[in-house]
Amino acid sequence: MKVLIIGDVVGKPGRNILTDYLERKKSEYDLIIVNGENAAAGFGLTEKIAKQFYEIGVDAITSGNHIWDKKEMVEYLKTDHKILRPLNYPKGVSGVGWNIFTTPAGEKVGVVSLQGRIFMPPIDCPFQRITEVLDEIRKQTTNIVVDFHAEATSEKMAMGRFLDGKVSVVLGTHTHIQTSDSRILDGGTGYITDVGMTGSHDGIIGMTVDSVLPRFLTSLPTKFAICNDNVRINGIEVELDQYGKCSDIKRIDLSIEELDFADFL
Amino acid sequence: MKVLIIGDVVGKPGRNILTDYLERKKSEYDLIIVNGENAAAGFGLTEKIAKQFYEIGVDAITSGNHIWDKKEMVEYLKTDHKILRPLNYPKGVSGVGWNIFTTPAGEKVGVVSLQGRIFMPPIDCPFQRITEVLDEIRKQTTNIVVDFHAEATSEKMAMGRFLDGKVSVVLGTHTHIQTSDSRILDGGTGYITDVGMTGSHDGIIGMTVDSVLPRFLTSLPTKFAICNDNVRINGIEVELDQYGKCSDIKRIDLSIEELDFADFL
Amino acid sequence: MKVLIIGDVVGKPGRNILTDYLERKKSEYDLIIVNGENAAAGFGLTEKIAKQFYEIGVDAITSGNHIWDKKEMVEYLKTDHKILRPLNYPKGVSGVGWNIFTTPAGEKVGVVSLQGRIFMPPIDCPFQRITEVLDEIRKQTTNIVVDFHAEATSEKMAMGRFLDGKVSVVLGTHTHIQTSDSRILDGGTGYITDVGMTGSHDGIIGMTVDSVLPRFLTSLPTKFAICNDNVRINGIEVELDQYGKCSDIKRIDLSIEELDFADFL
Amino acid sequence: MKVLIIGDVVGKPGRNILTDYLERKKSEYDLIIVNGENAAAGFGLTEKIAKQFYEIGVDAITSGNHIWDKKEMVEYLKTDHKILRPLNYPKGVSGVGWNIFTTPAGEKVGVVSLQGRIFMPPIDCPFQRITEVLDEIRKQTTNIVVDFHAEATSEKMAMGRFLDGKVSVVLGTHTHIQTSDSRILDGGTGYITDVGMTGSHDGIIGMTVDSVLPRFLTSLPTKFAICNDNVRINGIEVELDQYGKCSDIKRIDLSIEELDFADFL
Ligand SMILES: [Fe+2]
Ligand SMILES: [Fe+2]
Ligand SMILES: [Fe+2]
Ligand SMILES: [Fe+2]
Ligand SMILES: [Fe+2]
Ligand SMILES: [Fe+2]
Ligand SMILES: [Fe+2]
Ligand SMILES: [Fe+2]
Repeated sequence: MKVLIIGDVVGKPGRNILTDYLERKKSEYDLIIVNGENAAAGFGLTEKIAKQFYEIGVDAITSGNHIWDKKEMVEYLKTDHKILRPLNYPKGVSGVGWNIFTTPAGEKVGVVSLQGRIFMPPIDCPFQRITEVLDEIRKQTTNIVVDFHAEATSEKMAMGRFLDGKVSVVLGTHTHIQTSDSRILDGGTGYITDVGMTGSHDGIIGMTVDSVLPRFLTSLPTKFAICNDNVRINGIEVELDQYGKCSDIKRIDLSIEELDFADFL
Repeated sequence: MKVLIIGDVVGKPGRNILTDYLERKKSEYDLIIVNGENAAAGFGLTEKIAKQFYEIGVDAITSGNHIWDKKEMVEYLKTDHKILRPLNYPKGVSGVGWNIFTTPAGEKVGVVSLQGRIFMPPIDCPFQRITEVLDEIRKQTTNIVVDFHAEATSEKMAMGRFLDGKVSVVLGTHTHIQTSDSRILDGGTGYITDVGMTGSHDGIIGMTVDSVLPRFLTSLPTKFAICNDNVRINGIEVELDQYGKCSDIKRIDLSIEELDFADFL
Repeated sequence: MKVLIIGDVVGKPGRNILTDYLERKKSEYDLIIVNGENAAAGFGLTEKIAKQFYEIGVDAITSGNHIWDKKEMVEYLKTDHKILRPLNYPKGVSGVGWNIFTTPAGEKVGVVSLQGRIFMPPIDCPFQRITEVLDEIRKQTTNIVVDFHAEATSEKMAMGRFLDGKVSVVLGTHTHIQTSDSRILDGGTGYITDVGMTGSHDGIIGMTVDSVLPRFLTSLPTKFAICNDNVRINGIEVELDQYGKCSDIKRIDLSIEELDFADFL
Repeated sequence: MKVLIIGDVVGKPGRNILTDYLERKKSEYDLIIVNGENAAAGFGLTEKIAKQFYEIGVDAITSGNHIWDKKEMVEYLKTDHKILRPLNYPKGVSGVGWNIFTTPAGEKVGVVSLQGRIFMPPIDCPFQRITEVLDEIRKQTTNIVVDFHAEATSEKMAMGRFLDGKVSVVLGTHTHIQTSDSRILDGGTGYITDVGMTGSHDGIIGMTVDSVLPRFLTSLPTKFAICNDNVRINGIEVELDQYGKCSDIKRIDLSIEELDFADFL
């Protein structure tokens, strides 16, 4: 089974390249998972954008700390369980943190959204909370994808090691920069510290240099603006075998021009 | 001019692979820069290790927040100016933050060690402090390498953009995971968010899983232990042209076996 | 000379009790200093509110991290130098961090707004920056009041000790809770870790329990609402002698009813 | 019932004044609770010091983040349940977070050690975890004392409000500076944001100025040294009525000289 996992889609440029990419490539994948926490102009997600994602072929939307930015989400998450907010927000918080998705061929995949705590808001322990649900997921399927949305590389690697052999893939999001360490761990779990960001790669984490740099120079609040230059899709393709092990993990970091040129060859 | 820049060398396994690598490849480079903040069992640097680095061919040692871990450094930094502690520690702090190094061919290279502030100790502004010294360095050479030791990807990209066109290379260190975004920016500056870590890649940031994972599970202090498995060298090779522009940037992520096998082919 | 220093005024309830207090007591003070960073509904300050403060007798407005919340301030601070933004924002940032104020009797008082860095945004070193301006202030007067807006008690006590004997008073703000440690240090400097907050004392840092508590329970963003219950004025009264030493420091923590009752006795 | 609660005892000077104080006053109290996280030279607690505390009359020892500083504690906490480590460390961590203590008159008091998360290590939610045990404690007694060891005033006030009417007292520790806001909340719960620190009040949070100030000036690590000047005992005395409500809360902030002088009068 081939699963596509796309890193934080930032604003309209990110949504556009995702649309273009899926138009060309959708049929190659059994399941398509997209991190949508920055889809709405960089800050959060809306019902409208979530539905556009479904239309272009997205099966599951994972997220992170920014999922709460648009107020409507708190209500909307109660009914749309294809969007996953991080599992380890306190019990009682709106929405679900994991769900089972079914491929066209009828195979089941458990997808989990999880969030780190180092340099991030204090929430429940991600290691505890994933442990609590893992048995329940494994009863239904051994194909399990965990999007661990976290800042610190140490916490991300620790999660990779902690879940090695128990899930199919642990992929990091949140830093918006792809790491080069994609690999298959000893227990058969695919791992990468960060899949990167889908949006402009000529700004700063998807926003214009002009809107972000002054914040570092002055420590004053600034209003961030979406950047449109050098838009790239970032993510990974993973191959899962019949036991839910990861047999292949490939990084994706492409502009549409590069994609089309590669296909032309 | 070809410059080798090696990411945080962690403990003995890191020092050993660096020795092995330089034995084979040293002659290919005009200048060799190594981040040494974790060279002494993961925590800091000693005079003895610094001198071993010089013996195997290292020209300059950059560093970061861990450079102060071994007390002797505060004194030693006063006389050994081939070690650079981050420039933006307050004025009056022991040691230097930049220096000019000369290649065998007599070319000059300014090397700067700089540290970020997001999720890190509060020190002087890295943007201000690099600006203050840049003119002085540029009077001597346009070949300038900046090791920006920082946690947040946004701060690192901001520094890359800020220095684009003013220095030859901005490379990140500190996260111990190599990023895949090496490139040459519009102004001719080579850039990568993090060059990664030289040491065990089967632990967690160079330490054993067993010594680090409990800290995430319990929040209790644990004593970290150096990991010896799957030791790899991480860094970049950059080519600088006669104007100090970066004409090529290549990521290095190799075990000695891979290196020898590649050379065998 | 008797100086009144009022802690963070929060929203309309805070402004109202300040008005009531000054109506009754203004004539007793030679200089009136108010921290205004939360005066505009809890977040920042406006030109209109600043001018209301001047009308009721306020001489100087100190501030802190929230001073930038209302965008108009960045422009307004350029011309109104009775408002002090923290001195140790980077050079070039709008506004001034200290100024000399004159009492009705013609005596000069230097007032400084300074901000901590522990658990706060990274800005310039407060110890360095106050040192840079102290000589200049002392040329004009030895009466010097420093509002150190900071979170960590250790940083605040460190500043108190650092400035002991060099300024008349170091008073803390930002935590919104008055500390009981007002005293005169060995060098003659009046000191208190935090003067407290002027506004509702039945909420949480001036906001309603209902609007703040859910944030701790869920880690989701919530919109804070000003609380109107149990409004109290918090601050200190300090007596400065002819050498600029603090000869007396008294904590103020009163409701208007308590004030009127005390005056009635 | 009269309960004495003493804030963070720092090193030998803190232990000595506690001994002196209890020699004189012990008989006035039905229960004596001491925060011991800094008793061992400022960093942690040892079995030996805990036993000294029991000898001088201490009934219960609460703690905080520093309780883990001396390695022996992890083992010792397994058997000595008069020491409470913060309840909201993850389940499975050594030691207990609450216990029932009995007064000489046979009355029961539940004592809880709890820790905040804002600007502190990520642990379980203190609001969740206290809620889980409250029923169990209340089955045994309505006399309940909660030491909430936390940095942020907002989190502390939120806990006070959250537990108002459910416990007898919520007192804060950790900042080492006493606040002036001791009061009885609407539901009958005694509250104070911080009871302060028992040790030298002429240093910085109990340590010498000379050993702490350089850290703020240079951001380099320094070795802290216990300060011996102006040693004071800080804490509160609370009166609990037969329903477990707090009928009186008095702040204590005394040197032995002041205590003896007061007794002399
Ligand atoms: Fe994101
Ligand atoms: Fe995020
Ligand atoms: Fe490092
Ligand atoms: Fe580092
Ligand atoms: Fe404030
Ligand atoms: Fe503030
Ligand atoms: Fe403490
Ligand atoms: Fe503490």
